[in-house]
Amino acid sequence: MKLYGYYRSSASYRIRILLNLKKISWEFEPVMLNRGEQSKAEFLERNPTGLVPVLETGKLSLGQSLAIAEYLEERYPDPALLPSDPDGRARVREMAALIACDTHPLQNLRVLNHLRSSFGADDDAVAEWTRHWIGRNFAALEKLVARSGSDGRFCYGDSATMADAWLVPQMYNARRFNVDLAPYPLLTSIDAHCLQLPAFSEAVPERQPDAPVAGS
Amino acid sequence: MKLYGYYRSSASYRIRILLNLKKISWEFEPVMLNRGEQSKAEFLERNPTGLVPVLETGKLSLGQSLAIAEYLEERYPDPALLPSDPDGRARVREMAALIACDTHPLQNLRVLNHLRSSFGADDDAVAEWTRHWIGRNFAALEKLVARSGSDGRFCYGDSATMADAWLVPQMYNARRFNVDLAPYPLLTSIDAHCLQLPAFSEAVPERQPDAPVAGS
Repeated sequence: MKLYGYYRSSASYRIRILLNLKKISWEFEPVMLNRGEQSKAEFLERNPTGLVPVLETGKLSLGQSLAIAEYLEERYPDPALLPSDPDGRARVREMAALIACDTHPLQNLRVLNHLRSSFGADDDAVAEWTRHWIGRNFAALEKLVARSGSDGRFCYGDSATMADAWLVPQMYNARRFNVDLAPYPLLTSIDAHCLQLPAFSEAVPERQPDAPVAGS
Repeated sequence: MKLYGYYRSSASYRIRILLNLKKISWEFEPVMLNRGEQSKAEFLERNPTGLVPVLETGKLSLGQSLAIAEYLEERYPDPALLPSDPDGRARVREMAALIACDTHPLQNLRVLNHLRSSFGADDDAVAEWTRHWIGRNFAALEKLVARSGSDGRFCYGDSATMADAWLVPQMYNARRFNVDLAPYPLLTSIDAHCLQLPAFSEAVPERQPDAPVAGS
């Protein structure tokens, strides 16, 4: 199994967490977004969207982190990263999709670059845009997580699920954009708790082989 | 089963198609986005994101169309809207997520309104923004669909899947924004074929009870 990704891509970060949680060994192949490698013919052959991550496994070369997550869940069901009851599974997928569909796409690199080129947005305006969407969606997610009865360790239930693997990378992005996290005490607590677990802490961007060496 | 939605919301349109394909009867509850009903306390109680659709079933009040789709697939497996083999399931989910995550979130109403208020974007600039993202992602989807061996009837295989239920509403949006569809012959063919099927044609926005009467 081979993962094409980039240390700071939050969708790649999600899949690293899932692979770690499921104790699947994988080979890492960096796609240096800062050098435009995602737009080269070789990578577009693997994934026509030009986005990371891509999971390559046998004859399948698969993009889209939500699709990768469901694929891993079906092929490697243990440990389960979705609850066993239908309502719980639905809730966890709802939380992951709230990040994957409503939040992250509005603040990924190519979208922010396009805001600059289309509307002449400066750095402050772009940062404000990211904070608006992350804040709005975190406010909703905080409520969903509270309703699910979270005790501040995981988004749902007593063990890590897909929802946590989507939340932690989004919290990383929120800090990069200086989002005020005080209004989201449950999300903040879950993030801190998960980052104590090796599956999460080993997946953080700074610990990846393609991350710049500190101070360099 | 009750569906809270809006005739022109493409995420609501997706779920109408799924419910029709699975022959599940449901009650429709309009949430008039043009009157701000999604931001009222009563609706936010059902879905803290203030987004449609919401599927209400017993004690579950569920947002996020991808989560709703997986829930329906698990609870009402017949007819299956995902292929039976793991690679096929992954491909169909990848296609749906390419629309749900990378395409639609960049052109939904609240995002376009925020482009106007944040960056002073005028109607032309906003329309150009939507065409950029829809076009870029349709180009990738056209390739994914071709690779899956589509014969122009469905995105994948010989029957409707989640991918078709995501594509058809996105084609509707593309036409609203005057996207040139000539470069996407397979997507155009699949859209036309699916719209001949009652499950799709009965779900089109104009045929919903909350749609304005023609000419009014």
